[in-house]
Amino acid sequence: MNPGEFDLIARIRSRIAARADVVLGIGDDAALLQPPAGMQLAVTADTLNAGVHFPESAAAADIGWKALAVNLSDLAAMGARPAWCTLSLSLPVSDPAWVDAFLDGFLPLAQAHGIGLVGGDTTRGPLSISVTAIGLVESGCALRRDAAQVGDDVWVTGTLGDAGAALAQLDASEPEPFLRSRLDRPTPRLAAGQALIGLAHACVDVSDGLLADLGHICARSGVAAQVQVAALPASAALLQTFAVAQRAEFQAGGGDDYELCFTAPADARERIEALAQILDLRFTRIGIIRTGQGVLAVDAQGNRWQPSRQGYDHFA
Amino acid sequence: MNPGEFDLIARIRSRIAARADVVLGIGDDAALLQPPAGMQLAVTADTLNAGVHFPESAAAADIGWKALAVNLSDLAAMGARPAWCTLSLSLPVSDPAWVDAFLDGFLPLAQAHGIGLVGGDTTRGPLSISVTAIGLVESGCALRRDAAQVGDDVWVTGTLGDAGAALAQLDASEPEPFLRSRLDRPTPRLAAGQALIGLAHACVDVSDGLLADLGHICARSGVAAQVQVAALPASAALLQTFAVAQRAEFQAGGGDDYELCFTAPADARERIEALAQILDLRFTRIGIIRTGQGVLAVDAQGNRWQPSRQGYDHFA
Repeated sequence: MNPGEFDLIARIRSRIAARADVVLGIGDDAALLQPPAGMQLAVTADTLNAGVHFPESAAAADIGWKALAVNLSDLAAMGARPAWCTLSLSLPVSDPAWVDAFLDGFLPLAQAHGIGLVGGDTTRGPLSISVTAIGLVESGCALRRDAAQVGDDVWVTGTLGDAGAALAQLDASEPEPFLRSRLDRPTPRLAAGQALIGLAHACVDVSDGLLADLGHICARSGVAAQVQVAALPASAALLQTFAVAQRAEFQAGGGDDYELCFTAPADARERIEALAQILDLRFTRIGIIRTGQGVLAVDAQGNRWQPSRQGYDHFA
Repeated sequence: MNPGEFDLIARIRSRIAARADVVLGIGDDAALLQPPAGMQLAVTADTLNAGVHFPESAAAADIGWKALAVNLSDLAAMGARPAWCTLSLSLPVSDPAWVDAFLDGFLPLAQAHGIGLVGGDTTRGPLSISVTAIGLVESGCALRRDAAQVGDDVWVTGTLGDAGAALAQLDASEPEPFLRSRLDRPTPRLAAGQALIGLAHACVDVSDGLLADLGHICARSGVAAQVQVAALPASAALLQTFAVAQRAEFQAGGGDDYELCFTAPADARERIEALAQILDLRFTRIGIIRTGQGVLAVDAQGNRWQPSRQGYDHFA
């Protein structure tokens, strides 16, 4: 006999860490949470479906990690501090070993960032994971997409294109291990997002592809951006695995990077470069905000660079 | 060409109502919300999957209604006032007409209860809807499952068994229209939940079946309950459609009722009966809380009554 829904919930409940502001956690009709005074809530929801957001063969622990990471990345892009999350898990069959392995990926990431799992449900259905994450940010301080200003520098954290490259390699063979880990276990840039409050103007996380996501900043802010494709940061693994033309495709257009792309005034450059050392994280200046609309990518010769694939649309 | 993800999101965004405490709604990495001082958050998440929670043939508007209603019902069971929700929609294909029809069910219910849709995502995948709802309740006042006291009356709102009866009829033919509407368009008892603060001790919504859900109250409160099966409220449609034995099965064990089952001290009886008139909603006293554990259902002769099916477990 397979364990039923209530056993799965009990399994999850027995493994989660406490937070002082969780008045009532899993086990009632709703969780009860005590938000601190003077803070706003940042709320985001993302779903991962088997065969769409991860291969059917993906390891349960990697799925667990990524389902939370993509939501934490959204909180990072707002400069918010993670507080609580819910998890809705649809499973074709009740499989406690799978759930345990899923939690082996989900919970360490949750604990590392102090986010409390406070509710959700488990249902029967095609494998699908929906997470809603709630973060806290001081009122009026959140990093938004609509705050870019003409003359701002455009920056990006970490390296770009690794996940896209891994995905391309997956079609043919086992990806290079570092690239694969960037696809399966993205790192939400929470410390960077919080540190950028007061420094950055606009911010977005790179989930759909750099040009597409920077395009969201431009559209919401009523500005244009120019990006130097040659300036886009690449990992050593990407440099060693792909030639420059293909690399640029992944860096500019590949999704699933979960780095932060943000704009900041020129007088913040020194403080941002100092952050790089404090956070042990690369910050790269890749372009500038201008009047107009849209994102112009240029190559080293200053010519317009066109990606073959721009951004990720789930229904394209 | 089908509209892509961003068009679907724009479609949703253009139709939602504003709330003053939504600092930033759909269109950024996360929504920004300003919770009022002195309130706790009640947070719940429920997923509906095609073929599991609703028939593949269900109307999009009914699915939209129910996806929100089951979450609002959880807030009702806490006595919380609905504030904000997120919607994660997985669709096999991008179908704007389907999304519009879905919103025709979802949004009027949202507006009627003043809950703001502030975020979420649309992804490709088997039809599945995940909603996370956030409500507000004065600190320390929420109705919980763990607060039943020995000697309390057990009450239930509305009528029981209608949805279960409709589901049973669906197997053979088109259900009786009223029963069908109770299955497709359950009414979350929000006004009742809020009015019960200060009157009720423990509360749960009847989603898994009355005996199962009352069992959750007993388990969490460390008490037992005795329920008179003959006292369970039945709708006129149920009375006319099913004989007493089958009726009792649906009333005691059928899921999807979304009524509130609560316990309250005997000295609250008059005030609860007054509520029935104010809210134009039936409140029926169906049993009592005792020492011990578990739920004992008895028939009119005082003999133990055994359901053939107790509660709903998604993996049973």
